[in-house]
Parts: sequence; structure tokens; C-alpha cells
Amino acid sequence: MSATEDQITEWFARQRKLRPSDFPIGIGDDMAQVRLDCGGSVLVTTDMLLDGVHFDLKEADLEQVGYKAMAAGLSDCAAMATIPLAAVVSVALPAYFGEKELKRLHAGITSAGDKFNCALVGGDITSWHSDAPFAITVTMLSRTAGGPPVKRSGARVGDTICVTGSLGAAPVRKHLHFEPRVTEAIRLAQMVTLHSMIDLSDGLSSDLNRICRQSSVGALIEAGQIPISEEARKSHDPVTCALNDGEDFELLFTLADTDCRNLLQRWNQPLSITKIGTITAADKVQIRMADGRVSDLKPAGYDHLR
Amino acid sequence: MSATEDQITEWFARQRKLRPSDFPIGIGDDMAQVRLDCGGSVLVTTDMLLDGVHFDLKEADLEQVGYKAMAAGLSDCAAMATIPLAAVVSVALPAYFGEKELKRLHAGITSAGDKFNCALVGGDITSWHSDAPFAITVTMLSRTAGGPPVKRSGARVGDTICVTGSLGAAPVRKHLHFEPRVTEAIRLAQMVTLHSMIDLSDGLSSDLNRICRQSSVGALIEAGQIPISEEARKSHDPVTCALNDGEDFELLFTLADTDCRNLLQRWNQPLSITKIGTITAADKVQIRMADGRVSDLKPAGYDHLR
Repeated sequence: MSATEDQITEWFARQRKLRPSDFPIGIGDDMAQVRLDCGGSVLVTTDMLLDGVHFDLKEADLEQVGYKAMAAGLSDCAAMATIPLAAVVSVALPAYFGEKELKRLHAGITSAGDKFNCALVGGDITSWHSDAPFAITVTMLSRTAGGPPVKRSGARVGDTICVTGSLGAAPVRKHLHFEPRVTEAIRLAQMVTLHSMIDLSDGLSSDLNRICRQSSVGALIEAGQIPISEEARKSHDPVTCALNDGEDFELLFTLADTDCRNLLQRWNQPLSITKIGTITAADKVQIRMADGRVSDLKPAGYDHLR
Repeated sequence: MSATEDQITEWFARQRKLRPSDFPIGIGDDMAQVRLDCGGSVLVTTDMLLDGVHFDLKEADLEQVGYKAMAAGLSDCAAMATIPLAAVVSVALPAYFGEKELKRLHAGITSAGDKFNCALVGGDITSWHSDAPFAITVTMLSRTAGGPPVKRSGARVGDTICVTGSLGAAPVRKHLHFEPRVTEAIRLAQMVTLHSMIDLSDGLSSDLNRICRQSSVGALIEAGQIPISEEARKSHDPVTCALNDGEDFELLFTLADTDCRNLLQRWNQPLSITKIGTITAADKVQIRMADGRVSDLKPAGYDHLR
């Protein structure tokens, strides 16, 4: 396709202007927010995972696939610092699927949901008339955790940029069993004011560019400060792995530098938090390598349409 | 698959008991209902439509497919007599899809949503790495329309059974451009107390059996009273068409007989309402043919797993 996933998403968002009073958050963030007549709101996200693209049934068990599909939705809830409420799941089954396969899938779905008290409340089971590949869509609802959801678009010039955990090589080390950072995201939002946040599903280079574009800011990150996973360190280009591999499902967030120092002093969770750079007034995202060289950091993570 | 779609759904529902205080309606109805901390609630439904199963891209335009996918969700909102709020859409694209195809699809999605003020608020675009077939999942949120949502499980012995519109031959006459009965459902629920309701997506025989099984009642319908579509009348077996063709997306509902008489006197909408039978204490659904013969009416509509 000639357009990128983000260009298409932006085109969709431009077609219908949503009233902010009804939809405080619309197309283009990790979740949309729908205002309800009771005065509250609910957030919603949908993720579709395909055999041969997001997993490979020749290697992955269906329980792992069910887990991953739910965990991807839970990670979106984390990205907004919201509390998962419930999920519905639709599946397209190849003709050879039977009850046994569906029950394995269900086991994975509930094992991920149970961790965060997120119930499976409905779904749709359809079947190809052929051996077309398996597909699964998880749609998840969440609620705010006291404060407003943390959007992608709130980064401010001067913000410190942080990530949780370590990055790179996720496709070989954990893409079927990553931990959605739901608990940590809510704790972060309770401790400090987060200006922007996203979960690293497609890779740091792509997801940081999303925050910057949606916030109309730039960024400068320090290659030497990026927390690189042990597995990525073994590759021939660890920094590039950490920037572009995708599926880390860690949190990328920005906040005032004073808040960041305060946070790092008081943070006592096992999951690490690392400062990797600063939000700038430039109209681009840049990276400074260990040798001091600064270059543009283009989105080079996973694009679902490329 | 050895199990039917309904058996699988019931198995899923048994695995985790949902707390009615959190989820007044769970797995097995047209929508699930999620209680929110603001005191209100939101309903959610998900439908997945597949090329070669629910439509055929060799014949159907993508605008029609987008319309149908949204209209199926809207019809679920109607089935509960609830008001559509917002939708999210996930798609799996064959490799040959381009921007043009996505824009056609978007036009269909919004043309259906706009009719009922149901906004597209988010989605997920994924692409097969091959020419695997197109799939689309629509997940829709709705809210109650004053009263509680109308469930499948509320039918009572002695209730009159009614349907809207006319049935049969939908796959050849309207499956790509049916009208979800959202407005009529809300009006019905305002005028009388509906005991149970479902939208006729899989066929009268299957959907009436669902109401009866979930309500622990039986039914006797009169073949001669079923409103049969003009197209179905031209077939060699019009009654069977009306019972089993599916995709009518009309409303099937039950209510007290006095309420029904009252309703039929005061109903002034263009869409017809027809009495077709009575809820009984039998443990089966039966049909009386024009010659007086009574036989069991087994679910013989569309089963997504058969």
C-alpha cells in the first residue's frame, strides 16, 4: 500500500469530526473515550491478530495466541493508564478447527484477562469455508483510574522521555508471553503527572514518532541510555534492535523533568524505568549515538501495511 | 466441528461466572452489559464478517461490505432495544488492498453509522502477508434507552410472539443493504413491556429456539401467520425460506397478549408487526402448518460452525 498505517489512520480521523464533549479521545490514540449519560466514560480499543503475521500456528500454541491477543488489548489499557473492565473476542476459524482448539484459545484468553480482573463478556465465532488462516479480534473496555486517561498528544517541550523495562529482540524472546504494564501504568499516573504515554507495540522509533507528531513536538534521545534487552545485546546491532524490533509492550512516556526525578527516587517496583531523552521544539525526532553524532530517527518499526 | 455455535457459546459462558452486579448481561445474548462506577452501564457487541462467508467480494462492493458489517452491529443494538453510541472496526486486508479499497469500506461504515448517529471512534488495520481473504470485525457500544435492555431470556408462558417486516430470501434480496431496526425497537420498548427480543440474523427457526432455550419455555408458531417476503413466495418452499434463510435482521419479540393487542392498535410505523404464535410450557418449539399438522421446529438456520 502506498500510504502508511498512520497516514490512513489520520485520513480516517479527518473524515468525521467527533464532538469532544461526546468523545474526549477519538481516532488515533491507544483507546477512544466515549462519554456516557451517567457522567462517566468508558474507553475502548480493538486489536486484530493474524496467523502468519502476529503469530505462527506452526510454532505457537493456541493458548499462547489467546494470551497474546488479550495482552495486546490490556497493553492499550496500560498505555492510557486506565483500568481494564471487560473484553469481547471475535474469531475466524480455519475449517480444521474443532472444540479442542477453541478451548485452548479460551484458556489463553482467560489467563491473560484474569491477571487484571478483565472478564470475557461476549464474542463472535465464525468459520471460513476453507482453510483460510486463523484471525482473532479482541476489543477491550476500560475505565479511568481517577485521573484523565494519558494521551499520546500531551508531550511538552522540555519533558523527559522514559521507558519501562528493556527493549529489543521481543519477537524472539517474549512476543507470545509479555506482561502488559497495566499495574505499573496506573501506579505511575498516581505518583506523577504523565504528559503523554504509548505502549511500545511497533518499536521505539515508530512509537516515539507517534507521540511527537501527535503532540507537535520533537525529541532527542540518547542511544547510550536506551535499556537494551540481554537478547538484543547479542545481536550484531543492539541499538537498532531496541529501536525497531517492536512488540516490547513496554511503556514510553513523557513528564516534567522535576516530576521524573521525583518519580525515580520514589519508584520501588521491580520494573525498571529509564530516562532516554528529552522532548524538543524541533520538528523531528533525533538520536545521539555514543560517538556524539546526531541523526534523524525515522519510524522504522513495524507498519501493518508495509 | 462436532459442537454447534450455541453449544460452544454455552460452554464459554459456564467457564467463568460473571457477577451480575458488574455484568447484568453476560455471554449468550445479543450484547453484554457492563456496569460502570458512575452508576450507568454500557452494552457491547462484536461481529466478524468474512469474505466468502458473509459476503463475496467477487460480487459485493466494499462500500456494501462496510455497510453490512456496521448494520449487523446496529441490529444487535436494536435486538436489546438500546441506543448505538460508537463503533470500533478491525480489518485484515489481503495484500492487494490499497487506499482506494479502504476508502470505499470507510464510506460504507459511515453511511450505516450516520443513520443512527453511531460514530466510528477507532480501529485496527492489519494486513495479511498473502492474499488470504478479507475479514472485518465491528464492535459496537450502546446505551440503555430509559428502560433495561430487552434480553433473550425473558419470554413467559402465554406470551404472544411477534416479528417485524417479512421473512425469507434475504440472502438474495437484501443481505447487503438491510435496515437495522434500531428506531423501531426503541419505540416498541417505549410503548409496551417487551419480555424478550432477538434480531433474526440466523433464521426464525434458530433464533426462536434461542429465545425459548434461554427462557426455559417452548413455543407454537402458526406457519400461515408468518409474514413471508415477496421473493420467498416465489420459491418452491416459501415457509422453509422464511424459517431458515437467515439475515432478515428483523426483530422477533414476545410480550403479554394484552400488551400485544394494545401495541397493534397504536402502532403507526411503516414497518409491519405480525403475531406468529405463542410461548408455551412445552420443552420444545413447534410449528402448526396450514393443514393443522403440528411438528417440531428444530434450529435449521445458519450455524457459523456447520
